[in-house]
Amino acid sequence: MTVRDAFRVVLGSGVELPDPRDRPVGPGKKAKARDELPELGSELDELQERLFAEDGRSLLLVLQGMDTSGKGGTVRHVLGMVNPQGVRYQAFKKPTPAERRQHFLWRVRKVLPAAGQIGVFDRSHYEDVLVPRVLGQLGGAKLAQRYEEINAFERELTDAGTTIVKVFLHISPEEQLERLRGRLNDPAKRWKYTPDDLEARGRWHDYQQAYHGVLKETSTAVAPWYVVPADRKWYRNWAVAGLLLETLREMAPVYPDPGYDVAAQLAALDAAKALP
Amino acid sequence: MTVRDAFRVVLGSGVELPDPRDRPVGPGKKAKARDELPELGSELDELQERLFAEDGRSLLLVLQGMDTSGKGGTVRHVLGMVNPQGVRYQAFKKPTPAERRQHFLWRVRKVLPAAGQIGVFDRSHYEDVLVPRVLGQLGGAKLAQRYEEINAFERELTDAGTTIVKVFLHISPEEQLERLRGRLNDPAKRWKYTPDDLEARGRWHDYQQAYHGVLKETSTAVAPWYVVPADRKWYRNWAVAGLLLETLREMAPVYPDPGYDVAAQLAALDAAKALP
Repeated sequence: MTVRDAFRVVLGSGVELPDPRDRPVGPGKKAKARDELPELGSELDELQERLFAEDGRSLLLVLQGMDTSGKGGTVRHVLGMVNPQGVRYQAFKKPTPAERRQHFLWRVRKVLPAAGQIGVFDRSHYEDVLVPRVLGQLGGAKLAQRYEEINAFERELTDAGTTIVKVFLHISPEEQLERLRGRLNDPAKRWKYTPDDLEARGRWHDYQQAYHGVLKETSTAVAPWYVVPADRKWYRNWAVAGLLLETLREMAPVYPDPGYDVAAQLAALDAAKALP
Repeated sequence: MTVRDAFRVVLGSGVELPDPRDRPVGPGKKAKARDELPELGSELDELQERLFAEDGRSLLLVLQGMDTSGKGGTVRHVLGMVNPQGVRYQAFKKPTPAERRQHFLWRVRKVLPAAGQIGVFDRSHYEDVLVPRVLGQLGGAKLAQRYEEINAFERELTDAGTTIVKVFLHISPEEQLERLRGRLNDPAKRWKYTPDDLEARGRWHDYQQAYHGVLKETSTAVAPWYVVPADRKWYRNWAVAGLLLETLREMAPVYPDPGYDVAAQLAALDAAKALP
């Protein structure tokens, strides 16, 4: 079974969230996953370089999940294995007043990956169908319209050469409790915590329901969602690396023809050896 | 001697470019530099995290140098040791027609690092006082004005909390010849070469003179230039890592006060253990 098949959500299906400790594919043990990760990393790095050389297509990784689900850790441990020249990281915070006055996709369009890049969205336009819904500000036809706009937007991106990989990092409320506690107990991690996190945790079931809607309505054939069990950090890293790798292998970027005569350039280089 | 003292250019001085194989400071041997690099990397990563947590200041690394001088390699090997969340990489190509219709600093202002980030410019606004000068399109009062505008711009950035580290990667024409030949001979590297590279190589002395002007006129107290001997890749990586590290140590970012009552939040977390 491929990593993508193991985690892909089928559009319109009655999405059942897996156990956040499931490991339906890949290494069963931490040590093995840790051993495998650098190999996945060097292949990722090589494929990204080809993508860059090819200079036409791009890949967009969308990371969503509850607080502490490991979006930052995934960026550090998975994208950290790829040449920084090829990675375009973008975090999405609460929209600013200026952003609120625009269409919700406005700020997203400004930070899309360029040709050759792997774009990483740490949260994304999906916040705009999660937070307002949980806060009771969005529902019914307006929510349905946003889902449609998102699907159309993502189809537009894929048509333009961007392959989209959307990952929901799925953790349990018990694991979140441990991680929040860990942040509060470590002076070097307290800055990552805000009282809002507790607020959002209080709405856990509402968020799960909102995610359920997102997975059900926006896991299209061109831009499917993958639900990655994320209670184990090592498994999460391995799984996201695997998703990216399978996607890039399928994209199969190639080094372009140089567009010049190699032998002639080598000869010219030799002739120009003595600088003027 | 600090790394910065070893490589800093003093404003207005009769800049003497060092031998591109010089090693005035640091490890004399490749094996030692390679051993030291991961340690420098983990301290860089930790300081960047503090900078991010502090959420006020930023660091901007400007990389300049002739083709094949190792700008890309420096990004891969030095910035690759820092969490991708904290790195904002930006390459500057030949200005587009739209960019040409704007002030030369226009495109630069749009991609400055945000608070907490290390911005990396792979080429920069300095191309605009190098290329047109070499091509005979810029000189005299107009060139002097651009230098002044650059100095004012960089002072503005530093006043706003961005520490600027400008690095000229200094290679010899002999080393460049080897590297260009290497690119032509390796099918996986041919995409990095264009016949323009040979064109620019033909103007080597003009470029050196143009760099001389840049170093002389824009190595200000707030934004000094560092000339790094770059014929040896391992030394170049070690040196740039050292420059960044000394700079970040001096910036001394600190984790901010949490701004909430830790004990109260821990208690609230425990109370909220059973989700509603």
